[in-house]
Amino acid sequence: MPAEILTIGTEILLGQIVDTNAAYVAERLAEAGIDVYQKTTVGDNLGRVASAFREALGRADIIIATGGLGPTEDDLTREAVADVLGLKLVEDPEILQGIQKRFAARGLTMTENNRKQAQVPKGAEVLDNPRGTAPGLYVPAGEGKVIVLMPGVPSEMRPMLTEQVIPRLRDAFGIRARIVSRVLKTCGIAESKVDAAINDLFRTQRNPSIALLAHAGEIHIRLTAKADSPEAIAGMLDDLEARIRQRLGPLVFGRDAERLEDVLGGILRARGERLAVAESCTGGLIAHRLTNVPGSSDYFEGGVVAYSNAAKAAVLGVPETLMARHGSVSREVAEAMAHGVRHLARSHYGLATTGIMGPGGATPGKPVGLVHIALNWEGGGLARHYRFLADRETNKVRVAQMALELLRRHLLGLDGGEA
Amino acid sequence: MPAEILTIGTEILLGQIVDTNAAYVAERLAEAGIDVYQKTTVGDNLGRVASAFREALGRADIIIATGGLGPTEDDLTREAVADVLGLKLVEDPEILQGIQKRFAARGLTMTENNRKQAQVPKGAEVLDNPRGTAPGLYVPAGEGKVIVLMPGVPSEMRPMLTEQVIPRLRDAFGIRARIVSRVLKTCGIAESKVDAAINDLFRTQRNPSIALLAHAGEIHIRLTAKADSPEAIAGMLDDLEARIRQRLGPLVFGRDAERLEDVLGGILRARGERLAVAESCTGGLIAHRLTNVPGSSDYFEGGVVAYSNAAKAAVLGVPETLMARHGSVSREVAEAMAHGVRHLARSHYGLATTGIMGPGGATPGKPVGLVHIALNWEGGGLARHYRFLADRETNKVRVAQMALELLRRHLLGLDGGEA
Repeated sequence: MPAEILTIGTEILLGQIVDTNAAYVAERLAEAGIDVYQKTTVGDNLGRVASAFREALGRADIIIATGGLGPTEDDLTREAVADVLGLKLVEDPEILQGIQKRFAARGLTMTENNRKQAQVPKGAEVLDNPRGTAPGLYVPAGEGKVIVLMPGVPSEMRPMLTEQVIPRLRDAFGIRARIVSRVLKTCGIAESKVDAAINDLFRTQRNPSIALLAHAGEIHIRLTAKADSPEAIAGMLDDLEARIRQRLGPLVFGRDAERLEDVLGGILRARGERLAVAESCTGGLIAHRLTNVPGSSDYFEGGVVAYSNAAKAAVLGVPETLMARHGSVSREVAEAMAHGVRHLARSHYGLATTGIMGPGGATPGKPVGLVHIALNWEGGGLARHYRFLADRETNKVRVAQMALELLRRHLLGLDGGEA
Repeated sequence: MPAEILTIGTEILLGQIVDTNAAYVAERLAEAGIDVYQKTTVGDNLGRVASAFREALGRADIIIATGGLGPTEDDLTREAVADVLGLKLVEDPEILQGIQKRFAARGLTMTENNRKQAQVPKGAEVLDNPRGTAPGLYVPAGEGKVIVLMPGVPSEMRPMLTEQVIPRLRDAFGIRARIVSRVLKTCGIAESKVDAAINDLFRTQRNPSIALLAHAGEIHIRLTAKADSPEAIAGMLDDLEARIRQRLGPLVFGRDAERLEDVLGGILRARGERLAVAESCTGGLIAHRLTNVPGSSDYFEGGVVAYSNAAKAAVLGVPETLMARHGSVSREVAEAMAHGVRHLARSHYGLATTGIMGPGGATPGKPVGLVHIALNWEGGGLARHYRFLADRETNKVRVAQMALELLRRHLLGLDGGEA
């Protein structure tokens, strides 16, 4: 039972909105063991929407469409499907009542064009939409085929897909297999080294399969397993994950949605230790990432963005003579910043960055992309330098990443990372 | 001459990569006066890729395809097009030489599978790709139709499209009209107020047309003009922009790619004044945004991320008694932070934020989302408070936005914004 995805909307067709729905639907269908063969986008044009449904029905058994269910004249998806399947549109009194109630709850009166959203192709099953006015529709399309219509608003579409549509499809098409992916994340280790460490698994593993993906300064290892029960899949993924972790050890910093800042925060919290940061070239990005984590005030004391030499001297107590002798982008200054911020914030660790992010700022012997990172703690410290070659904003992301990873590795008793 | 866009690649089909190419191609085609009727994505399967081309040729005159031109077995786009058009694939010695040179320049030997990238459907025109190994192909498809093949890597595809493909298409199809959009940006003013201010233009304007878009704490006004010459379009857009600016004045902070931090930086640089920031709830995001701008060290002194009360007291000199009396989320503390950071960094302006970003942290009388922003300068200051109701990360973005806008308006002699 191959499936196709149909996205309806002129703004998406013209690139004024990037379509995130199609990717989401494709991922969820793949996980549910439903093969997706094609994705199509058409604008709000009755003839072209109808043609797209007709052609898709010629190729696939399941058509999942999003968009075009709103109350305006542009919203033509219901009409197109009724036309293609030769079905009448009838007003569903229950849907109408639901829409009227939604308006009343907000102290508004339903406008006449919203009536349209209560229209249903005869024989279709209604899918509840507690988050909006347009319900979804599950429409039998003959020869065992089905067309599913969902609203285009992602926050309405996503739960409708996972809670209502996919269970119905798995049931209707007798699908037992599921496909689940798990991502293991590394940072500060080259893709070729990850590859070398697990190359034999790579070559021999088919289910679960393994893929390597480079992403924003991280190398991700994606494991994908297919089996009938969630328990069997979890077991397969756990086994392979254990074998990979045997090779890479704590170089794997996290899994799936875990970010480096989440993991680092968890380690600091468990140790009851606090961190402060002194940022020159990262300009606040490290603090921003740390404070994106709810509850980060448990372990993050704060930081200083010491962008000018004057600020490095006045706030962090970096000696002017040190900057004059070594330059503000130097190991010595990074170390003094880390030491300074740790004392200022009376925290366990001070983490500091200084570098040249470009496009300007290079000096003789100090090219764009040169970065010094330093970590300071009671009685000790360490420093690393790197060279990053991307644009300014990407360089900032990479430096923040390496700084967080430097501290994570230190806390775990590992050596610091490579660029 | 309707066009269609065909994206080829299993990872894109399955949602493992979000397709940004199709939106980019659609926007550029629309600007070039070429109507796009459909976008399709298929995986790396010879039969399905060929079918997709065949069906698209039945509907459209111009097919723009990206992806599937790499050196691996999965890359089947050339073969599919040769098959559909009944053309032979022949090795192009010039392309082959180019690929060999690219490898040699990096000290590598070309692998045998890269030979594949030198294959060309007979009669196709080769489009240079100075940024990668796979050239593009402009393939006449009979009845005046054309298939264009481009690599899937965005940095290779984008310049190929704008520099080589679009000029050829405009020439081949005798297209004179162009469509150009311009975006005017506002911040800290409700969409309904922007709408009210320009509603009459909205209703009467057809070319250029006007659209309102809400985006990350900003309201964008998009003007779209269609005409034959770039000069005529620029004139039309300039006229309408002037009329809108007459209504909204300096509430329009910037245009097109200009960000609030770019504009604010420009104003500070022109005045020869410097800024320092004290961030509690924004946690470094304001400093991060300011330092994303190349050359920001000209006017940005640095900042303090005072996440804990201890840091607010120790680094910024906020009196403990003030925090005890009013709470750390209060106008009084925001003002003391702004004053403290201005003195610490010896800058002209101090800008401070303190608030509760959620999900936790609410106290009696101080709900999640409450934020105080303060600005301090020699001899004066101002403060505003807001309530934001989104998730933690979105709240941070909104607060940073309002803080930057508060300063921009103050520098222009306007009053501060609404949330």
